[in-house]
Amino acid sequence: MRRLRAREAGIALGGMQPGEHNAITDVKGVRVGHATIIRGEGALVRGVGPVRTGVTAVIPHPGNLFAEKVPAAATVFNGFGKTIGLVQIEELGQLETPILLTNTLNVGKVADALVEYMIEQHPAIGVTAGSVNPVVCECYDGYLNDIGGRHVGRDEVRKALQAASEAVPEEGNVGAGTGMMAYGFAGGIGTASRRLEERYGGYTLGALVLANFGRRADLLIGGVPVGRELGRAPGQAREQGSVIVLLATDAPLDARQLARLTRRVPLGLARTGTHGGHGSGDLAIAFSTADRIPCEPEPPVRLVHVLNEQSPILDQLFAAVVETTEEAVINALYGARSITGRDGHGAEALPLELVGEILQRYGVE
Amino acid sequence: MRRLRAREAGIALGGMQPGEHNAITDVKGVRVGHATIIRGEGALVRGVGPVRTGVTAVIPHPGNLFAEKVPAAATVFNGFGKTIGLVQIEELGQLETPILLTNTLNVGKVADALVEYMIEQHPAIGVTAGSVNPVVCECYDGYLNDIGGRHVGRDEVRKALQAASEAVPEEGNVGAGTGMMAYGFAGGIGTASRRLEERYGGYTLGALVLANFGRRADLLIGGVPVGRELGRAPGQAREQGSVIVLLATDAPLDARQLARLTRRVPLGLARTGTHGGHGSGDLAIAFSTADRIPCEPEPPVRLVHVLNEQSPILDQLFAAVVETTEEAVINALYGARSITGRDGHGAEALPLELVGEILQRYGVE
Amino acid sequence: MRRLRAREAGIALGGMQPGEHNAITDVKGVRVGHATIIRGEGALVRGVGPVRTGVTAVIPHPGNLFAEKVPAAATVFNGFGKTIGLVQIEELGQLETPILLTNTLNVGKVADALVEYMIEQHPAIGVTAGSVNPVVCECYDGYLNDIGGRHVGRDEVRKALQAASEAVPEEGNVGAGTGMMAYGFAGGIGTASRRLEERYGGYTLGALVLANFGRRADLLIGGVPVGRELGRAPGQAREQGSVIVLLATDAPLDARQLARLTRRVPLGLARTGTHGGHGSGDLAIAFSTADRIPCEPEPPVRLVHVLNEQSPILDQLFAAVVETTEEAVINALYGARSITGRDGHGAEALPLELVGEILQRYGVE
Amino acid sequence: MRRLRAREAGIALGGMQPGEHNAITDVKGVRVGHATIIRGEGALVRGVGPVRTGVTAVIPHPGNLFAEKVPAAATVFNGFGKTIGLVQIEELGQLETPILLTNTLNVGKVADALVEYMIEQHPAIGVTAGSVNPVVCECYDGYLNDIGGRHVGRDEVRKALQAASEAVPEEGNVGAGTGMMAYGFAGGIGTASRRLEERYGGYTLGALVLANFGRRADLLIGGVPVGRELGRAPGQAREQGSVIVLLATDAPLDARQLARLTRRVPLGLARTGTHGGHGSGDLAIAFSTADRIPCEPEPPVRLVHVLNEQSPILDQLFAAVVETTEEAVINALYGARSITGRDGHGAEALPLELVGEILQRYGVE
Repeated sequence: MRRLRAREAGIALGGMQPGEHNAITDVKGVRVGHATIIRGEGALVRGVGPVRTGVTAVIPHPGNLFAEKVPAAATVFNGFGKTIGLVQIEELGQLETPILLTNTLNVGKVADALVEYMIEQHPAIGVTAGSVNPVVCECYDGYLNDIGGRHVGRDEVRKALQAASEAVPEEGNVGAGTGMMAYGFAGGIGTASRRLEERYGGYTLGALVLANFGRRADLLIGGVPVGRELGRAPGQAREQGSVIVLLATDAPLDARQLARLTRRVPLGLARTGTHGGHGSGDLAIAFSTADRIPCEPEPPVRLVHVLNEQSPILDQLFAAVVETTEEAVINALYGARSITGRDGHGAEALPLELVGEILQRYGVE
Repeated sequence: MRRLRAREAGIALGGMQPGEHNAITDVKGVRVGHATIIRGEGALVRGVGPVRTGVTAVIPHPGNLFAEKVPAAATVFNGFGKTIGLVQIEELGQLETPILLTNTLNVGKVADALVEYMIEQHPAIGVTAGSVNPVVCECYDGYLNDIGGRHVGRDEVRKALQAASEAVPEEGNVGAGTGMMAYGFAGGIGTASRRLEERYGGYTLGALVLANFGRRADLLIGGVPVGRELGRAPGQAREQGSVIVLLATDAPLDARQLARLTRRVPLGLARTGTHGGHGSGDLAIAFSTADRIPCEPEPPVRLVHVLNEQSPILDQLFAAVVETTEEAVINALYGARSITGRDGHGAEALPLELVGEILQRYGVE
Repeated sequence: MRRLRAREAGIALGGMQPGEHNAITDVKGVRVGHATIIRGEGALVRGVGPVRTGVTAVIPHPGNLFAEKVPAAATVFNGFGKTIGLVQIEELGQLETPILLTNTLNVGKVADALVEYMIEQHPAIGVTAGSVNPVVCECYDGYLNDIGGRHVGRDEVRKALQAASEAVPEEGNVGAGTGMMAYGFAGGIGTASRRLEERYGGYTLGALVLANFGRRADLLIGGVPVGRELGRAPGQAREQGSVIVLLATDAPLDARQLARLTRRVPLGLARTGTHGGHGSGDLAIAFSTADRIPCEPEPPVRLVHVLNEQSPILDQLFAAVVETTEEAVINALYGARSITGRDGHGAEALPLELVGEILQRYGVE
Repeated sequence: MRRLRAREAGIALGGMQPGEHNAITDVKGVRVGHATIIRGEGALVRGVGPVRTGVTAVIPHPGNLFAEKVPAAATVFNGFGKTIGLVQIEELGQLETPILLTNTLNVGKVADALVEYMIEQHPAIGVTAGSVNPVVCECYDGYLNDIGGRHVGRDEVRKALQAASEAVPEEGNVGAGTGMMAYGFAGGIGTASRRLEERYGGYTLGALVLANFGRRADLLIGGVPVGRELGRAPGQAREQGSVIVLLATDAPLDARQLARLTRRVPLGLARTGTHGGHGSGDLAIAFSTADRIPCEPEPPVRLVHVLNEQSPILDQLFAAVVETTEEAVINALYGARSITGRDGHGAEALPLELVGEILQRYGVE
């Protein structure tokens, strides 16, 4: 039985209107695909299992991304993380590969598989077209998963890329989210979107999170201290987590403006209760689908649409970042199911019924 | 009649224990002083008034600050602001003057007055001891104040520095906070502190904010959508504000670690509802009183106490940043009184009674 | 008698072609003006003199700069400095005032005078148009000047702004450069420009430096160790200097691309021999005259010309940054005359005849 | 026959004294190892060859690096690069793995092999000790090498790590340098060191570069325009290179101070002639061997030796960075031999005899 998304359960986070499917894929052309690996039970045998992990691909547009790059920016809030690809995004303000999410120790293998895929798509890479910048973000799933085994390989990366579609992405412990935990519960992938009113250009902004952070006691839903009401979780006392937030929009923003979007992401995360734990490597990447940056040197000057920084549209986009980030995290919790991993370690699903009662008691639902 | 602070009104924000006075001055040696200028009524006559502004001084320790500097760090979340002094803090990781807060267009004059004061304190400046780095932060009070008149001068700066004491700082529209507005209400200065449990070293962390940001509809108090319940404010639709957050601690943190503290400040601000408006120039500065950095070249190597980054104390400090930032903003609102400024522009005080009823209705108080 | 500029003396630094006057004012619309204060002799009496200082204004275009801002970016290489205005340049990528250069302890007063000037130009500032971001950079002239006296005031700022013209700026110890020293000699203002070949768009890039850095022994001119050949300087052993480099171009670069230009400035400085001393606060600001950014919210989307990042033009601009920075520093040395300041402290002019002989011996001239 | 190093050829770059072997391994405990792959001739067959590539390991100390981390910092001058590991270095100011250098498209595979190696060294990684941050830097060798084939694997990484020794590292086209080109000649690995005078503490600073940047016409050696004298190179017109600079020192510097060292690296690079080409991804990483940072949470506070920032020692270290960076680049050119790679592409060795004549003509040798 499908678990309800937060909004279906009657929780409206923020005051703006979601896009059609309340998902990052509401931004036209953006696709998401997962590959999930669940294999084995019982005691950890490094390199064998149990395996509770996966990979998620976010693809900005259906064309040749290396030939037609998109403007992009990133902000790291807590750099206790191992993401690859940010150096070039920050310098050139552009994204030229899909963004892959996976577990921390798997970044190398997944980046290698992404390079191989990109070469296939654009064979001049490494011959006449220079190199390519793979972007792979990560969170730590070692509490449930044989993370040292680095089980996400070439095949899973292909599977996630091929599975990518414009449908609403599956949420919770799926793809890169398979072994993740947030606020002491099963966590993982969540998404949400907002569509600006027509007088603000009717642009869409979507977020997709890989949520693997937070202590149970801190969980807030719609401002209600749900975590405190639920009581402390056993086990995993300190954060070794991380949270990755990807933002997509069709608004015509350049890299500097996209960076301003990413700097609002912590405001959304904070609404779910986190204090930004030392061990939680947190970052955001944003891209716009409104421009296509050529990899060729001609023409020497391009004519680009850029949002007027003084327009009130910018504040609407900022608010949309906060709202979608918050809702995507809550959706990850709503979507994730109970799971048992290595050495009998378990992550319970957020008890939706109980949460519903708490929210009602606080007058939120 | 004194207005109650949030905690006195029964609102406990966060779960940690405040320091003795729940103020930045709970960090031993830290002093705060205000100078307030309220002069004139009616229509704006630039250079004359009405004047609703001031200056606030935060002094890290009672010694000669130029000779015995303190480790410090800053983070800018939204750089739509005019603060002076951050370049050197970021390079050298130290603070060598008091931090002054004032209105945006007054930064130059106040910085000049601070230079003059520092030269008096340490006459070798500009002769044999090189230059000095004045730190002056600002928010925009032009809705109430003749900000173009730049009414804060040498005398007010002296007054604030001389008034500085270890007492609980006055809150609300006082000192630099005089003409400020937050969430559509009279705003300004607020403060709060947390004392870590003994098992976490018993350190104290305090915050002082100059709150001049946020739209009324967004205001959250303890997670409750108080702003929405109160209804929209008239006037000033877009943020032209800013918020400055100063953090002090006696924990032995170096500049890099202090920077990590400042990066948690947005998490505290977010709990009061903001989405980080375009026009709101937001930044935080943190300093530690646990080290005194000499201005002399001897000895060549210093022995310094530094918090072990892996110690759980760090997460306690992070949580304290979030809690004190949130509470200091709310205290600014609780402390501020209704005020009328230039051209009949007014800022109402937060209606505490009504807020109390709303909070009760949501089960918070 | 006018001193020769380096190129007039037969020293061609770099291989690209200078603009018409080999000055930052070769970028159409850019104006430079100086105000110089030389007053008093003998022993330092703080607040009285001797005064050897000034202020220099660089104005990007002849229009209303607040209403029509220009794209801009800054990079700090060594933050041991007190510049005001960078926070907002980094956030918004734009410049809305002239850039003023002056002495370190005078930044506050000069910034205040610039605010006053901007309000006159655009009276809505502080009333309906929000605040303004004054940009004032500085170097330390306290070896020659009563820097503690802060002698640059409102009148000198006005004088520099009014004196601004498209003529070749005076070089050496003039304006903000009056009391400056570079590589142990009298230093100060220098400028240079390059014009790209037509096949690279024919764009112009100009640099203006305020040179107040370097030890005599390190001075290189055209790769020749002139400083070593001239022998050690007496006095001032350690750097307390700084160097400010301003870049202007008519190439259509956005703020991110301009930041890439500024990051090449150290490469030009290095060619003059510096190792980037601890006490030398070094930074660069670049702006483009090819775009005018409105201060109004309409239209919501702007159509902007932006250089194609893959175009070879970018490398030409990078090379022009290196060449103009190097040549502007050398021009500052060539332009400056011997000067005596407070307490009999003196700065000799670079001995051009002797330098010429050394260069000839090394086959450079 | 061994090629002479620059200093052996009579070229003294800078005025400070080298360490015993003029190599990064003069910093006690630092080890360097190479693995070189040269395989095949003729036309490129992707995945087969010709292969001209390798991997180089720099190991900060002989202990368990995960358990005893070293303070570290990084600066990116031109982010057109694909290095992994900088995010965490910047946040935590520490290095917990050897630094590996390799070709651009091989970063993923090499990072994965490094993770595997680290897990073997410290089996708690991924189980009870959290994750590990592999640091792998790169330059593009695709002009000579089948870079798309990603030929550096697990075995080569092991070989480089096992080969690591305190001997003077081999220079030129060896290890990661095998397929690299600098200033149009065969390039690759170079190293140099400086030992401070006893009155400055007698500290050692060493640099190791992977040099793969610059156009032939720009090459300067000791200030002499050697490149211009040698005439233009055929082929490879634009930079697609990169340069990686690693700095090691036994001076007691914290992460912020190490970052200041890295910011002087461009000054050394500039002395070899570069203008910092668009396509050249340039960065530096510095570490100090004077501190060992525990991975355990106890004790909560550490007592750390830190250089007094006001001590003149800091400027000596800055100068050493500039001198070693410059000399290491020139050593890479002196060490590299002519090589032919894929599709008959060739890189000539710097013609040392001719260069010697040019330098003599300019009076340098």
